[in-house]
Amino acid sequence: MTADERGLPGIQRDVPTAIHVQISEHIRLRIASGEWPAHYRLKSEPELAQEFGVSRGTLRRALTTLIEEGLLRQVRGRGTFVTSTTIEPAIAQKLSTLSEDFASQGVVTTTTVRECALIVPPKPVAALLDLAAGTPVLSLTRVRATDEGPVALLSNFVRTDLTPGIERVDFTSASLFGVLEGTYGLKIATARRTFGAEAATPAVAEALALDEGAPVQYLQQVTYLADDRPVEYSDVWIHSGRLRVTSLLVRR
Amino acid sequence: MTADERGLPGIQRDVPTAIHVQISEHIRLRIASGEWPAHYRLKSEPELAQEFGVSRGTLRRALTTLIEEGLLRQVRGRGTFVTSTTIEPAIAQKLSTLSEDFASQGVVTTTTVRECALIVPPKPVAALLDLAAGTPVLSLTRVRATDEGPVALLSNFVRTDLTPGIERVDFTSASLFGVLEGTYGLKIATARRTFGAEAATPAVAEALALDEGAPVQYLQQVTYLADDRPVEYSDVWIHSGRLRVTSLLVRR
Repeated sequence: MTADERGLPGIQRDVPTAIHVQISEHIRLRIASGEWPAHYRLKSEPELAQEFGVSRGTLRRALTTLIEEGLLRQVRGRGTFVTSTTIEPAIAQKLSTLSEDFASQGVVTTTTVRECALIVPPKPVAALLDLAAGTPVLSLTRVRATDEGPVALLSNFVRTDLTPGIERVDFTSASLFGVLEGTYGLKIATARRTFGAEAATPAVAEALALDEGAPVQYLQQVTYLADDRPVEYSDVWIHSGRLRVTSLLVRR
Repeated sequence: MTADERGLPGIQRDVPTAIHVQISEHIRLRIASGEWPAHYRLKSEPELAQEFGVSRGTLRRALTTLIEEGLLRQVRGRGTFVTSTTIEPAIAQKLSTLSEDFASQGVVTTTTVRECALIVPPKPVAALLDLAAGTPVLSLTRVRATDEGPVALLSNFVRTDLTPGIERVDFTSASLFGVLEGTYGLKIATARRTFGAEAATPAVAEALALDEGAPVQYLQQVTYLADDRPVEYSDVWIHSGRLRVTSLLVRR
């Protein structure tokens, strides 16, 4: 089947635009139209070259352009895929943190600390952290943003009996798990994370630059140490248009 | 510390109500008020018995009542926990299906099949399923409900070149993965699931008995066979008030 038969404008050999530029543009349009969605795996290079009626070298030049533009990515042994335009951390599948996942994906984020102070937590939080009512904890509220804007509002409550002085850490640059494990030598072992959809409250809407009532991805977490003591409770609200939680799962 | 010191009405020995009934009621109130939230781990039995100033036998009788009521559950070797009132499938962590997760948790659901027919899928779905445009697939639309009401709307597109005749299966009782693996002998190997929050469209709102625009948990999935061929694409909308996706995660 040729590109023409698939309803695409054909490759034109009698125009000054180079063939590989025309092919890049065809693929770009398919991605832009959604016909080739995120994670779509392209056919093999020989198949595509045949489809476009060009040499493999020409095809490869077109693909290289799109890879450089960030529209395609190649995975060794698996093929060429359309890139996702949203950030896709695997935080439902692995006990990594957003900042660790951003780092591993090469996503650059900035952190704004909105609160970093000792407070008495709400009673349900105290209960989940195994603390007597009235015991102070660190309340850490942060907004993480990419160059597109805010992607997550994080509210953590951290046991300070395990982390004396943590309220003096600068969390603009330090990560919470990094500080717990590195500075305090705590052995983070397990966590329970639950995910749900919520309507943005005024505070969440303001932090994520969304309309009040807009749907936001909500994540609640309790983190436990190797000795089974809870160390941290968090509420996280995620801008669902900019970040999708992803799991790559294996059957049984 | 006694129950009184924690701000609870004390155990009264000069009233006709049995002590263990009073203790059950105290705990019930703490759970109802949210002071002891879902997944809160109660103190050990000796500690609680001392706190209430009763024998371990009396305490155990009170706990047994609450376990029978479904408010508490005991996990061997870990302790006694407050039960969650929402269903919490681990579908972000494991490649199980909602129906498998419901079955393992003892949640009884009913399935209503809204569509089970061969259709030509939208182009992005065809692309993700590695199908030429125009190839028909099974479109299977189902609503799963518990006795509280609908919990999920599922829309699956299944490759029929791998599953000839699948449109004649009665999915009111059969599960999709069960049919793919059992009837067709397919080896389901991996899946990519992404999670996000969306506003309920009119169709989703109607199916889940929610207001239009209400936040719903959205899940998108592509399932692959052992030979890496995609077999199924799905969109799932979850009633977030009735079902929270949960992951129990282990660090590194």
